Amino acid sequence: MTPTDETDEGAQQPEPLTLSAAQRAVDASIQALGGYWPPLAALARLFEEGGELARAINQTYGPKRIKPGESAASLDEELGDVLYITLALANDLGLDAGGALRGALARSAKRAQK
Amino acid sequence: MTPTDETDEGAQQPEPLTLSAAQRAVDASIQALGGYWPPLAALARLFEEGGELARAINQTYGPKRIKPGESAASLDEELGDVLYITLALANDLGLDAGGALRGALARSAKRAQK
Amino acid sequence: MTPTDETDEGAQQPEPLTLSAAQRAVDASIQALGGYWPPLAALARLFEEGGELARAINQTYGPKRIKPGESAASLDEELGDVLYITLALANDLGLDAGGALRGALARSAKRAQK
Amino acid sequence: MTPTDETDEGAQQPEPLTLSAAQRAVDASIQALGGYWPPLAALARLFEEGGELARAINQTYGPKRIKPGESAASLDEELGDVLYITLALANDLGLDAGGALRGALARSAKRAQK
Repeated sequence: MTPTDETDEGAQQPEPLTLSAAQRAVDASIQALGGYWPPLAALARLFEEGGELARAINQTYGPKRIKPGESAASLDEELGDVLYITLALANDLGLDAGGALRGALARSAKRAQK
Repeated sequence: MTPTDETDEGAQQPEPLTLSAAQRAVDASIQALGGYWPPLAALARLFEEGGELARAINQTYGPKRIKPGESAASLDEELGDVLYITLALANDLGLDAGGALRGALARSAKRAQK
Repeated sequence: MTPTDETDEGAQQPEPLTLSAAQRAVDASIQALGGYWPPLAALARLFEEGGELARAINQTYGPKRIKPGESAASLDEELGDVLYITLALANDLGLDAGGALRGALARSAKRAQK
Repeated sequence: MTPTDETDEGAQQPEPLTLSAAQRAVDASIQALGGYWPPLAALARLFEEGGELARAINQTYGPKRIKPGESAASLDEELGDVLYITLALANDLGLDAGGALRGALARSAKRAQK
């Protein structure tokens, strides 16, 4: 699965992006970039990408001003990067992202009943 | 690990969990819990959940010892919580998570070609 | 709030807590706990402690409710833990925290002039 | 207190940088930049600065490569920024950083005895 396949909105319909397919696409992407990092290094990247999303949210919804010469951070790009590295971590740790999300949804449902 | 593996827990097949369906499920969950938080508060929760994943990774792959009386953090639960709050942020910011991820994959593909 | 206020807990006055003395105190504490972690593991702990501070701030100034049976996070404790691990990282990386802070103050002063 | 005073290593000795003096210097700096942010926005900046430190540590001690055209992150600068925003948060929350650190040292001492 390549980005090209997925963004081809013409005659050929791309398969719907399930969480499993997303994990596989991220896996192919990581392999093309040279393979997985150790979990603590992948975590450091989650910290970094989360921090860039923090900057974008603070510029858009908070008091942070954009410095002269600095371009506004893109919420869409930063959220995409957080999602990418989260799925890469799931692959790295041998986890099924869909199952992990279902667990989180079930825990929330329990809390909502209280 | 395929969607098929995840869904064989009974006669009735749940629909495959696409990223769009995941965003809708998180939306229903957030509504049941009282609605969305302001973006900076949702971001604080990403920091918190990311920090709990950091603890779990550090206990499993790093030098962090589990304190007496403390239960080991679950990688699966912590990753699920990070994914949940990331999708809640996507909803909160009006973003399409699948599109955002496709953008991240496209940026990675570009970098891999260099 | 002055150092004098902090140190009136007995007849004997402790030396004022300079940043250098703070780094030495953290060093002694880390040695007593078994020594330094690799930088990426120490960073994971900054993520974790920052996340706990996020929880405390979100409970105190944001919409986060304290779950039943959960005790309110202490801003003072969580900030102390962030400071402790930041100074431990400074030691770990061979940095002078006071000098690093002076650099940050100088960069801010430059920005304020614009 | 200005960065100039502190870095004058000539005849005139700067006062030693205690944690209290550091908090006052950060306070003057924040005031010169327009005043404090709400706690959740200041926290977002801790996330951002922590993320930049993560990048620097990952480049120096982890597998992260420096992208073409990208300058290497400075450990000293990034750690200084984390310290600066942590002290700004302490001011923002009305906390004494020295007292908070002493609390963290005391908790570590207790743990080391076990």
